[in-house]
Amino acid sequence: MKILPGINKTQDLRNIKEELLPEICKEIRDTILNTVSKNGGHLGSSLGAVELITALHYTYNTPKDKIVFDTGHQAYAHKLLTGRYKDFSKIRTKGGISGFPKRSESEYDTFGVGHASTSLSAALGMAVARDLKKEESKVIAVVSDGALTGGMSYEALQNIGQLATSMLVVLNDNQMFISQRVGSLGKMLTRLLTKKYVQLAEERSIRFLQNFSKLGNDAAKLAKRARAILFPGTIFEEMGFRYFGPINGNDLNELLPVLNDIKDTAGPVLLHVVTKKGKGYDLAEENPTDFHGLGIFDKDTGKSKSKVPVAPTFTKVFGDTIVKLAQKDSKIVGITAAMPEGTGLDKFRDAFPHRYFDVGIAEEHGATFAAGLAAAGMKPVFVLYSSFAQRCYDQILHDVCLQNLPVVFALDRAGVVGEDGPTHHGVFDLSFLRNIPGLIIAAPADENELQHMLKTAFDLKKPVVVRYPRGAGFGVEMDKELKTFEVGKGVFEHKGKDVNILAAGNRYHPALAAAAILKKENIDCGVANMRFVKPLDTGIINAALKKTANMVTVEDNMLSCGFGSAAAEYISDNNLTCNMLRLGIKDEFVEHAKSSELYDSIGISPEKIAQNIKIWLKSKK
Amino acid sequence: MKILPGINKTQDLRNIKEELLPEICKEIRDTILNTVSKNGGHLGSSLGAVELITALHYTYNTPKDKIVFDTGHQAYAHKLLTGRYKDFSKIRTKGGISGFPKRSESEYDTFGVGHASTSLSAALGMAVARDLKKEESKVIAVVSDGALTGGMSYEALQNIGQLATSMLVVLNDNQMFISQRVGSLGKMLTRLLTKKYVQLAEERSIRFLQNFSKLGNDAAKLAKRARAILFPGTIFEEMGFRYFGPINGNDLNELLPVLNDIKDTAGPVLLHVVTKKGKGYDLAEENPTDFHGLGIFDKDTGKSKSKVPVAPTFTKVFGDTIVKLAQKDSKIVGITAAMPEGTGLDKFRDAFPHRYFDVGIAEEHGATFAAGLAAAGMKPVFVLYSSFAQRCYDQILHDVCLQNLPVVFALDRAGVVGEDGPTHHGVFDLSFLRNIPGLIIAAPADENELQHMLKTAFDLKKPVVVRYPRGAGFGVEMDKELKTFEVGKGVFEHKGKDVNILAAGNRYHPALAAAAILKKENIDCGVANMRFVKPLDTGIINAALKKTANMVTVEDNMLSCGFGSAAAEYISDNNLTCNMLRLGIKDEFVEHAKSSELYDSIGISPEKIAQNIKIWLKSKK
Repeated sequence: MKILPGINKTQDLRNIKEELLPEICKEIRDTILNTVSKNGGHLGSSLGAVELITALHYTYNTPKDKIVFDTGHQAYAHKLLTGRYKDFSKIRTKGGISGFPKRSESEYDTFGVGHASTSLSAALGMAVARDLKKEESKVIAVVSDGALTGGMSYEALQNIGQLATSMLVVLNDNQMFISQRVGSLGKMLTRLLTKKYVQLAEERSIRFLQNFSKLGNDAAKLAKRARAILFPGTIFEEMGFRYFGPINGNDLNELLPVLNDIKDTAGPVLLHVVTKKGKGYDLAEENPTDFHGLGIFDKDTGKSKSKVPVAPTFTKVFGDTIVKLAQKDSKIVGITAAMPEGTGLDKFRDAFPHRYFDVGIAEEHGATFAAGLAAAGMKPVFVLYSSFAQRCYDQILHDVCLQNLPVVFALDRAGVVGEDGPTHHGVFDLSFLRNIPGLIIAAPADENELQHMLKTAFDLKKPVVVRYPRGAGFGVEMDKELKTFEVGKGVFEHKGKDVNILAAGNRYHPALAAAAILKKENIDCGVANMRFVKPLDTGIINAALKKTANMVTVEDNMLSCGFGSAAAEYISDNNLTCNMLRLGIKDEFVEHAKSSELYDSIGISPEKIAQNIKIWLKSKK
Repeated sequence: MKILPGINKTQDLRNIKEELLPEICKEIRDTILNTVSKNGGHLGSSLGAVELITALHYTYNTPKDKIVFDTGHQAYAHKLLTGRYKDFSKIRTKGGISGFPKRSESEYDTFGVGHASTSLSAALGMAVARDLKKEESKVIAVVSDGALTGGMSYEALQNIGQLATSMLVVLNDNQMFISQRVGSLGKMLTRLLTKKYVQLAEERSIRFLQNFSKLGNDAAKLAKRARAILFPGTIFEEMGFRYFGPINGNDLNELLPVLNDIKDTAGPVLLHVVTKKGKGYDLAEENPTDFHGLGIFDKDTGKSKSKVPVAPTFTKVFGDTIVKLAQKDSKIVGITAAMPEGTGLDKFRDAFPHRYFDVGIAEEHGATFAAGLAAAGMKPVFVLYSSFAQRCYDQILHDVCLQNLPVVFALDRAGVVGEDGPTHHGVFDLSFLRNIPGLIIAAPADENELQHMLKTAFDLKKPVVVRYPRGAGFGVEMDKELKTFEVGKGVFEHKGKDVNILAAGNRYHPALAAAAILKKENIDCGVANMRFVKPLDTGIINAALKKTANMVTVEDNMLSCGFGSAAAEYISDNNLTCNMLRLGIKDEFVEHAKSSELYDSIGISPEKIAQNIKIWLKSKK
């Protein structure tokens, strides 16, 4: 590392001769590869965007000019060029910098991200603010073709087109994902990138323009249209943008002159840039899906160095079970919002390609599409990350539950997710879903219960949410035969005479461990596995209170409106005598760290559950 | 009425000679006008869609073929033609039929609606289900230009284009709203509808095609493109649709042959139909905004027959106050999602046109656009109906609150809204918002408090929600000078020794009235005006419990996760001795009826509050 360590602000970068930029890009790439192989993180898109980000900071007067990244997992080069080189080795670790842009971290991070499709809206807000304040600065949104499939992006594009505000949208088109592109926009972009198409279009346009003289007065107008028609970009031009591209976004020799040319263009401009995911790291270029977001690995071989868990992940159990259920029921249809691998639905896709639907990054449409399928007699399962389900709260309520349609929502990554941090923790689902009438909310205790719960969900013929955590299961024995659980009923075997823990979802096994710790201190602690958060198994609450008034709820969700809140409502409404301790997430956003560290700091690891109960019981005496 | 009463199913309609259809349309129109003038309802769009709906049912084999309406307030003709002529006089009244399509009401109502932009997703679901089940039927989605501005519509259009499923999208373009169209799509549609444009395009295309011979082999391909380019529809063709139109949607002579022609076209088809809002009722044709949704009126003069309330509406107070605040603070920016009149922001629009933004039916973008404005130093207020705020839960959480950005969300129509029913009641906001860290949730007790609360909200420089109900205020005195409330503090003057009511928002005055009723029965009942639901004024709870353990919470929100739930959490966490009665909405959707009827049936009218408390106190003895 020769140059990069000396860049503390982007002006330092702009003081460097253009000839040195390729060397800086190499240093950035090496740093990213070294760090991600040690810490895990988003490798592919960050490697792909190195030249683009360098060229943007080199051309624009950041931080006065504002760059807004979409989704944000491509922005590692941005972090390295904006004063965070020294901190970079601690990225995504407890107390270290975030893996995503974050306003509190740097003035260069103009807008925090994590969820897709927000950059155009936020950037338009900044551009409008600039105009209202009569300031002079540029606003640039960097958005991928994937994020452009989200409806918010379209809402923003329309608004930008109408307001005709000056801003640059860089469409960062990851050409390596062409095969997996969804939606008609994806198809169009793919077609436009075909070399043959571009060449043909060029030839055609020349011949076409030669005919203009014969068109009389309309020639000039038609010529303008012809450029938009015969070259890519029609849809964007129609929306009020000046379209430029496609250009090679990994080639500084293309990027720098084009950015300089369009820098001072008034009105909305869209620059279509093609980049290669994993650029500069052969293994990632070849297998972009494997190297999108990953744990620690050997950078020479690309092999994972993460400890291989003995237990299957919840994601895998979901994938296996859905295939098993679908083999017996041809009405089961699987839906994902651009996450087939992440959700385990890829297995279903391969087994039942005609019953598999990837709707793009479009959770709202996905949920209502599922409602339409259910209204017509199918049995859809929409599998998505808990955090992204926040995007379709209204659709779950208004389109699914109000009509009591049998849609199964499988919420993966419920609870804390670890290093991705506050934008990705799925710790709100119990809270925002619990208020919806008619919705059943299941939280299986482990991977074995997950498989049974999925069967149960389809059997219920009602709107059902099944939420389960990220990562490996508990290593429990997997039953061969699937069975159906009784809805709203948990399991409460040993009833403690000193205290009872009511555990939601994946906190059941830690609660058992906590009870074992307490037993050593002569505290008789019972543990209930609730299985369902709604309907709540009030029989368990009553049974527990018969033994002792000391009751503890534990969940990996917000305390506000979550599972413990449901218990508090029940106790209050029924005027029961109860001393309750609610363990879960306090009214604050949860930062990034390893999940195990987070369970500890939240107080819901086995040791902390035990410790919290001990202190609390002591305080009662 | 000669023919309409005899139509009980759509096959009856299809058995009638085509020549009689204009007469039926007239009868439908008369029935709509008569009923809406008596019951209130959505007049303009329903009158505009009479011929379109009649032609659809005449051409398609409904209910086997499925029509999915978007938003649904245009579908009165559909109700009249599908067996609900007799029930129509009771539309929107308690126990009567709904003002929106509703699955439980009729097999012709294929998908319940209320919120915009859902029809394309739902219809795609139905079309895919049909294909998977290898059935033969048609699926038609009827969507307005307004609903097409929503991002969900775009997500669905993309998915439809990709899957190339056979279905018809009828774009019902209300040409009378041209002047108010927002977004670049609106601009494009407007341009395309200019007669001059269409004529010019026709002339051009002829000349254009004459040149094809000179283009050699590419002629055919270019010819195909040329139609799409020189005629409207480019953007839809680009998305994979065959585009037809625009045609006059109020003219059966245009509608019927075109529908017949395209009926058996494979793949996605978009038919662009232009209709006139209020068609056939001069007063509504001239003033479409006034006659969109309205109360009872004199159909001869068009004058409202609703009792004019003495007190200003909350909406008006919002509009006046925002203008007042904006006069003193140039950083205040107003945002609406296609509802300037409904939210009262029209006054701000007229006073500060450059600081006013109508983003279209695009709540997601609206919220994040506001976040972008706030990140760049402005003070945005996004005013929307509580029910539609469900659409931007994730944006409020992820883009606004996670970054602690000072955006003010003004939620009009919080609580029950009356005749529009379950899709429109704003009874979930306290529940889905209360779990978001850092969000302040204010519920002013009356119109005077609303004005102060808006000032307070801007002063706080944090994310703030101010929620207030539909309709007239309580007629309280309006202070001339705006003041700032202390955050998280309510008012608790008379503390009851028998029982205390903690009231959220607009339930404060009814609670006072309830206390007066109880006083006559020698029950000493105190009443607290909480003003804020978050942070909760726990001082009031403590003070109340010092006088008596009997405490009642009252709110026009779900009991699950609402205000009373917050009180239950606090009491439980602090192990306080309390007998609590929570009044509010049980875990069920609230049907349509007058708001006063709903307050009664929910048990939160003054009389019912008193009665509930009396019964409850008696049960304790």
